[in-house]
This record gives sequence, structure tokens and C-alpha cells, in this order.
Amino acid sequence: MIWFTEYWTDNVGITFKVKEVKKIKSKYQEIAVLDTLEFGRMLVLDGLVQTTEKDEFIYHEMISHPALFLAKNPEKVLVIGGGDGGTIREVLKHPSVKEVHLCEIDEEVIFIAEKYFPSISFQLKNPKVKIFIEDGNDFLEENKNSYDVIIMDNSDPIGASEVLFKEEFYQKVKNALKKDGIMVAQTESPILQTKYFQNAVREIKKVFRNVGVYLAFIPTYPSGMWSFTIASENVDIFNLKDIDIKNLDLKYFNKEIFKSLYTLPTFVKNLI
Amino acid sequence: MIWFTEYWTDNVGITFKVKEVKKIKSKYQEIAVLDTLEFGRMLVLDGLVQTTEKDEFIYHEMISHPALFLAKNPEKVLVIGGGDGGTIREVLKHPSVKEVHLCEIDEEVIFIAEKYFPSISFQLKNPKVKIFIEDGNDFLEENKNSYDVIIMDNSDPIGASEVLFKEEFYQKVKNALKKDGIMVAQTESPILQTKYFQNAVREIKKVFRNVGVYLAFIPTYPSGMWSFTIASENVDIFNLKDIDIKNLDLKYFNKEIFKSLYTLPTFVKNLI
Repeated sequence: MIWFTEYWTDNVGITFKVKEVKKIKSKYQEIAVLDTLEFGRMLVLDGLVQTTEKDEFIYHEMISHPALFLAKNPEKVLVIGGGDGGTIREVLKHPSVKEVHLCEIDEEVIFIAEKYFPSISFQLKNPKVKIFIEDGNDFLEENKNSYDVIIMDNSDPIGASEVLFKEEFYQKVKNALKKDGIMVAQTESPILQTKYFQNAVREIKKVFRNVGVYLAFIPTYPSGMWSFTIASENVDIFNLKDIDIKNLDLKYFNKEIFKSLYTLPTFVKNLI
Repeated sequence: MIWFTEYWTDNVGITFKVKEVKKIKSKYQEIAVLDTLEFGRMLVLDGLVQTTEKDEFIYHEMISHPALFLAKNPEKVLVIGGGDGGTIREVLKHPSVKEVHLCEIDEEVIFIAEKYFPSISFQLKNPKVKIFIEDGNDFLEENKNSYDVIIMDNSDPIGASEVLFKEEFYQKVKNALKKDGIMVAQTESPILQTKYFQNAVREIKKVFRNVGVYLAFIPTYPSGMWSFTIASENVDIFNLKDIDIKNLDLKYFNKEIFKSLYTLPTFVKNLI
């Protein structure tokens, strides 16, 4: 039996007991699949936990449903990153959605997800899904004024994903959205990655008129407090209507969470 | 430089880089003071993190203010456990409070807090505070029908604190409350200590008519998702009025958090 530790910063980390480890080197990163005793199978990219069988539902529900419920009638959705397929699975729970594009730079992530994480990836085969193995930056330039919702389900702002957290990139996201489009991005931990969090929100605010931040409890991500930032040029994202989730098969998100979506602890409000 | 790891379960833990460690054996437990690089000074009892300088405000605000705002005019408050003084500090922010009793079994915790954690413990010297070095069980039997609010700021339900999570004990808490009294307890992590959490809520529901559960993000506690359970026989704790917190000097709790206090992820709702 071995232990795998992810260092959240130089000075704090989380450590998991692991039965078995498989490692693959792709063109872009080291991909590891760990069988953990507490969280089930875990996907790790370059040493950072991306998702686990036990708690993946929290991240995938919370990155998807708020934006999809805020969009009037989301038909066409783009997911950038998210090669594990969990976000796609949640997006397809909305019956209005006719087409989902997945733009993932590393096709090995998709192969690994299909092989080792079937409960997360199974909707990647859905005929509504089109997969593009491509850089997010290039893809957006080719697809202007196209999407009702764009979900930035990418890894942390280090290495390959760093450019995805900058004003220039958010401008491309905005151009790829339809007039009443909505964007949502994962924006790190306000407690342990304060600068990345503040920077992402500030860059998004330079581009979009309406910007809101919300949080979710994600035990396997740094500090357990994870942030998402939602943005739209023309949709009033602060108008949180009553929603009906009864057929969506959700384990975390619900109508009370939607109603109080932007409720934040005071110290987080003061950061943005 | 060394690392201190708290194992949250047999299979997952959190690990902190530490500059210096001081250890004391009291009559009841091993008390350690760790200088961590990420969270500042940390108090550890029998290997379990109790509080850190960086994130203590979250726990202490969230265990105190919801119950104090729900109580009509809280004048007399009892804190069981809580020898570090952080809960006392928050309780005394309410101008209606005339008297706070602290019932702590281990006076070494108080000495350590006064010596090493002055920013947490400084209100222990306030003339409104009376400290009783006594077992919580015995203390409650001697003080019936006495308190507006009782705060169960004790350690986890293992060892000495196990009896504090049982119906018999909550019955004593109820008897020590005035007619419109309110109790609040820390009730563990719904994700990693599911049985303890469910058990505590179930035992509290056997005793009190109105019981509500709420959560807070506490990065140094297991899973980062921490639960509190609030209970009252006669106060409608679900009637969350507008509150004014402007002079309270709070960093986490605010009026929006109070308004949506009992909003829970669906899987947590399904556990209670």
C-alpha cells in the first residue's frame, strides 16, 4: 500500500492511500489513474487531482447547472477541457440541449476516461456530442457567435492552461457566444490560490458586463472551497428564478442552492 | 523542517509543513502547538487539528452567530468545551450578552491558548466571562433552566467527548436552556464522518422539536465541509429574519449566509 500526496501549496497537501497506480505520458502531460481507498478511482494530471469517483458529481454538477438554468433555452453548448466527460454528462441532462462540442487538447485524457471512468465518461458517445482534439484558443477563433453556453472545464492556470485565464482568452470566449450567451469557468480556491482566483475574476470582469462568483464544497480540491465564475454580456445572471430540477437526477445542486448561488463569505466578497 | 499529517480517516489525510512543535501532556490529552507555514499557529489535541490562526474565524463565527441571532435577546450563554476562547470572543460581540459561562474539562487548554493564541483567547479575561473547569455532563445537571444559548464547542465524538453526542446528554442541554433557549453543536463532516454526523443529528432530533443543519467551509477540518446542528424546543429556528451585522467585525458570517443558512446539497439533505 502506498500514499499519494498532492501538495496544494509548498506548505500544505492532501494525502490518499492508494492500492494501484497506472501512469501514461501523453504529448502534453503525465496522466495517472489511482485506485484510492477513500475516493475510489482518481484521475491525476501532472500530479494534480482532477476528479475522483466519489466526489466528481459535485464539481460536474456545479460547473454545469447554474449556467444552463440561467440560459433561456440552451441548445448549443461548448465545453473547453473536460475530457473526462463528466461535464458533458451533466449538460445532456437538459432536454433543450441539441448539440454539445467538447474541445480537449489531449485525446489521451478521453481514452483514459473511457477506459477507467465509465460512470463519468459514458455520455461522450452520445450522438449529440462532437469532440474536437484542438487547442481551445484556436477553436474559439474558428467558431464565432455560436454557443448559448461555454463551460471552461480546464485545469489549473499553470503550464498549458495559463493562457485560458487571461483577458485575451475571455474576449475570444465572448466572441464565440451568441448575444444572450453565458460563460462559466472554474476559478480556483479563494483561500489557498487567492491570487489566481482574484486574477481570473478581474480578467473576466474586464470582458463581461455581468459577473458572479459562487462556491462549492469539493473535498479533493485545495482547501475544499472551490470557486466558479459565471459571466454574460446581456443576461442578468443575478435574476435567479425558481427552477424545477426534479427529473435531472442530481446529488448536489438543487433549487435552494440556485436561489442563494452568489452568497459568499465576507472575506471572499472582499477579494472580488 | 518537518511535516505533520492528520489522518482524517484510515485512507486520507491533510499534511502541513511545520517549523516548530511544542507538546504538553495534560490529565486528559496530548496538547500540541505547531507553527505551520500555511495556517500559522495550530492547536492539536490528541493528533487532531482544533484550530489555526489562519482559518479559526470561520469555525468560531459560524458556531456562534446563527444561534445568537436566532435567540430573541441572548443575555446568558454557555459554551461547553471551547477552551481556546474563540467562541467566547464571538459571543461577546453581541451587546445583549451579559454573562458567558465556559465549561472546559481541561484547564491546560486554556493556559496554552492564553500563552500561544492571544488573538483567539483574549476575551477569556473579559469580566463577563466565568470559567468552570468541570465535566460538561455534571455542570449541566447543576444549572437547569439557566441559559438563552448553549454552544457545544467540543472535540470529536471519540474518547472523552463521545458522551456529548448522545440523547441523554442533549436532554441535559435542553433542561439547562430557558424556555426559548437555543442549542448549537458542531456535528462533524457529512462526507468523511457520515455516521457520526447522522448519529448526532438523529440524537438531537429525539430531544428537540426544531432542528436545522448548516454547513461552513473549514479547510483544516476533514473534507473541508463542516456541519453544525442548531436546535430549539420553542423557537422557530427556520424563521430567518433580516439581521444587521455591521458593527460585529466579521470575516465570514453575513446576512446573506444567515438568510440561506439551511441550504444544503441534496446528498446532505438526504442524510438527515
